[in-house]
Amino acid sequence: MMLGQQVPWRQDKQPLSETDGHGLDHIPIDDDELQDLIDQVKDYQLTHGFLLKLVRVEEPTTVLCRPVNVSIIPTAFPGSLFDRALDLQKACNQLYIHASSDSEWLHSVLQPLLKEDGLAKSLWQIWSHVRDAGVAQDVVCGIFRSDYMLRQPASERPASLKQVEMNTFSVAGACHAERAANMHKHLKGTLTAADSRRSGVLPTSENIAKLTNALRAAHRTFEPRTSHRTCILMITQPINFNVADERPMEYGLQGRGIACYRCNWQDVLEQTTLCDDRTLLFHRTGVSFEVSLVYYRAGYEAGEYDLPGRETRLRLELSRAIKCPDILTHLTTFKVVQLALAAPGVLERFLSQEAADALRPTFMDMHALSSSEALAIARNPDQANDYVLKPNLEGGGHNIFRNDIPDFVETLAKEQYADYVLMKMIQPQFKQGVLMTPQELYQGPVVSELGVIGTCLWRRSADGREPEVIGNEAAGWTFKSKPSSVDEMSVVKGYGCFDCPLLTDNGCDVSQ
Amino acid sequence: MMLGQQVPWRQDKQPLSETDGHGLDHIPIDDDELQDLIDQVKDYQLTHGFLLKLVRVEEPTTVLCRPVNVSIIPTAFPGSLFDRALDLQKACNQLYIHASSDSEWLHSVLQPLLKEDGLAKSLWQIWSHVRDAGVAQDVVCGIFRSDYMLRQPASERPASLKQVEMNTFSVAGACHAERAANMHKHLKGTLTAADSRRSGVLPTSENIAKLTNALRAAHRTFEPRTSHRTCILMITQPINFNVADERPMEYGLQGRGIACYRCNWQDVLEQTTLCDDRTLLFHRTGVSFEVSLVYYRAGYEAGEYDLPGRETRLRLELSRAIKCPDILTHLTTFKVVQLALAAPGVLERFLSQEAADALRPTFMDMHALSSSEALAIARNPDQANDYVLKPNLEGGGHNIFRNDIPDFVETLAKEQYADYVLMKMIQPQFKQGVLMTPQELYQGPVVSELGVIGTCLWRRSADGREPEVIGNEAAGWTFKSKPSSVDEMSVVKGYGCFDCPLLTDNGCDVSQ
Repeated sequence: MMLGQQVPWRQDKQPLSETDGHGLDHIPIDDDELQDLIDQVKDYQLTHGFLLKLVRVEEPTTVLCRPVNVSIIPTAFPGSLFDRALDLQKACNQLYIHASSDSEWLHSVLQPLLKEDGLAKSLWQIWSHVRDAGVAQDVVCGIFRSDYMLRQPASERPASLKQVEMNTFSVAGACHAERAANMHKHLKGTLTAADSRRSGVLPTSENIAKLTNALRAAHRTFEPRTSHRTCILMITQPINFNVADERPMEYGLQGRGIACYRCNWQDVLEQTTLCDDRTLLFHRTGVSFEVSLVYYRAGYEAGEYDLPGRETRLRLELSRAIKCPDILTHLTTFKVVQLALAAPGVLERFLSQEAADALRPTFMDMHALSSSEALAIARNPDQANDYVLKPNLEGGGHNIFRNDIPDFVETLAKEQYADYVLMKMIQPQFKQGVLMTPQELYQGPVVSELGVIGTCLWRRSADGREPEVIGNEAAGWTFKSKPSSVDEMSVVKGYGCFDCPLLTDNGCDVSQ
Repeated sequence: MMLGQQVPWRQDKQPLSETDGHGLDHIPIDDDELQDLIDQVKDYQLTHGFLLKLVRVEEPTTVLCRPVNVSIIPTAFPGSLFDRALDLQKACNQLYIHASSDSEWLHSVLQPLLKEDGLAKSLWQIWSHVRDAGVAQDVVCGIFRSDYMLRQPASERPASLKQVEMNTFSVAGACHAERAANMHKHLKGTLTAADSRRSGVLPTSENIAKLTNALRAAHRTFEPRTSHRTCILMITQPINFNVADERPMEYGLQGRGIACYRCNWQDVLEQTTLCDDRTLLFHRTGVSFEVSLVYYRAGYEAGEYDLPGRETRLRLELSRAIKCPDILTHLTTFKVVQLALAAPGVLERFLSQEAADALRPTFMDMHALSSSEALAIARNPDQANDYVLKPNLEGGGHNIFRNDIPDFVETLAKEQYADYVLMKMIQPQFKQGVLMTPQELYQGPVVSELGVIGTCLWRRSADGREPEVIGNEAAGWTFKSKPSSVDEMSVVKGYGCFDCPLLTDNGCDVSQ
């Protein structure tokens, strides 16, 4: 079968040649092999739940689904930098554990955001209520993800890791990433020719087991006060196309004898009770459970914090249940925190000199938009072209890129400047890739983003002493690629594809 | 949430009460629990590949899929009869191993079918060619499924097992059945109330591993003659909505280091070569493999035996590759063989008296339509009402039921009588069930069908001696349920639902 006859096909208009110095290896694969891979990938995704749920057309007793965007050939990535990123995660976790535990510092950082109505203000108000009422649970669970891109230096020097952002709340992608790893391992086994023509190692993934274990560890730390059975409560969004990235942790917990139930953000007030002693009860089909752990997969959008939404979050945060994570940790997810942590001396405030020295080189130049230096850059088309303007909002699709920045800044009122940080674009290293989306098969230069998943568990100190770290682990990785011409990276919004790195260094440790 | 507001709902118009003597237990479950189960089942199916592929709307780089019809509450089944059915499987396997090895007997049975053009004639002609050329491979692999229903006796006596049919070719449903077993085990763990109100045991399923092992055992028996890498070749239908029931065996084999590739029935002639010494080579993206085992998941429909189709089957059967199963075994799948095996003395020809005595009670009354006795019944509406007319064709959806028989028989030419057998309807035992299809949620009396999967491996003797049985196992089970008012049972055609038995006897052995 000739691929060209069947598949909408896009080759990037200016493909980079094999010898352009950007580290692009030609992928030796012919149309027959590609068609074979496409067929295999569709069926693999279908049989492994590597799918999105088409919730908009959901019917009472059935629902359509379709494969998530994926690469069909793993994309090259330097093994030594993959290892480096995983090695850095404990320090990343440590940094955010400490930053979230220093509420005075956090308040000073977030102060400019709290004047305007918005997510930060809502969260801070809820935190203030909790603080005034007294924190009933000092143990916190964290599932974080630090995202990196490969920066291509102008000279002949090797590429380096640059942190795009740190996610500390409702981190997604772990389950899909594990499926991508398993899929590419399977596909490699079925390739008859191409596998011997490309060298490299595919790292394995145990994301689901690791995340399940992290939730389980938190659950076991909880000391129940009632005779009800305990359960983990996963707080979810109601119209949810990404259940395949959430359900596996629930299945893993149930399979280990730990009850885990989903409760929609909008149903929390109806389905839970906060007792006088701050015990949180969850009521399900006539039975009550004592909630050990609240695992948030909702509550990250400003729109969720209407009046009932605030009451919802307040109830959960007031409770004795452990939160994954609590609201102080949630507050570290704003870009101003990333900016503040990059300021001179701040890393050293929270980390050892050694850890600070290891992390700092991964940071890109960042500026508060409200600074005169940043405004000058943002208003100058030539300079702005090297930058991205990031709102403090969570989630992909809100960034303003390059030439769009000057006009956008003109639309902002001065009070809104605090909502944005200006970050120097990472000049990414391109690799050759083959990506499949419902719209097309893309073959050409791609940019990849490596996410390192960290899990941690710690106990805050009420008297301002350092938190006690109970668990801190680099649990796994996610890996996404997109055509080099696309700026945004969000798979579920269609901008990118789940992928697996083909680690190209020799002798690297790929045990993770 | 009130179920009635959201879900098209059907209660059988004449639901059987709890005390009607038909063994119907009321299922204590309220609307909230049902809605919760529906939500859970949809997501479980999505995340576990318990899906059908919507091949008619397949696009080049994506494809839609949707959940397979399922029960959302397991349906009661007597544990002792479940065990009995599994215990009978070795004798069933043995019976068909021997029947397929006695080509003279088989010819005498099939003779009436061979006059008309049709599947049996095509297959027999191919077998004749192979026989004349000499059989190059004496080892045969079998994956069978014996289907049973519970017969409800008129009196107060307990229900008994009755065999609906024996499938010896391209048996489906094993993977879906395993998912149904796992799903109901998971759901039981999430139920807060109802689980304690219904007693019974959910049997486990290892269908995929057992079938993979059976194919692996055959593969390991094969003695290659070339230096090419060996592979198992799964022969598939090109427009295939049921890949989720086929791919897992391929993944299981690949995972154990055995190459397994799919080849569409229509591509066999192009992608394989039969060497002079009968070695079968499979060519895939520039690399050749020596085929150890041909595993048929196609070739069961008359329409597949056009001229190239016959050549396809002939090439595969002539080869030295082991077949799962070979064409002689395929020929035992016709209803006339089931009929002939039920005739007095025939079981004893192939089995020990003990095994024959165990199997015979599961047989229903059957008649060749060509017999005067059968024709008299078929033409009499009163008598026909207790019967089903079964064509020798494979697959569901071709049977003629009860009152439809007299008119249908009038449309047949006398020569066509040989294509049908008349079988007494099994008066089934009803159970209470809850079934979910894209169209509705059905709650009411259901009829279930238990399929027992057998795997076997044997060596035919060229000189007419008995075959040497190398392996013979009851590998697992399938379980399907349908509303009691529906006669046909075919899940993929929409008539039934994959289900899991809730074994209601105490003390039964449910290790299978």
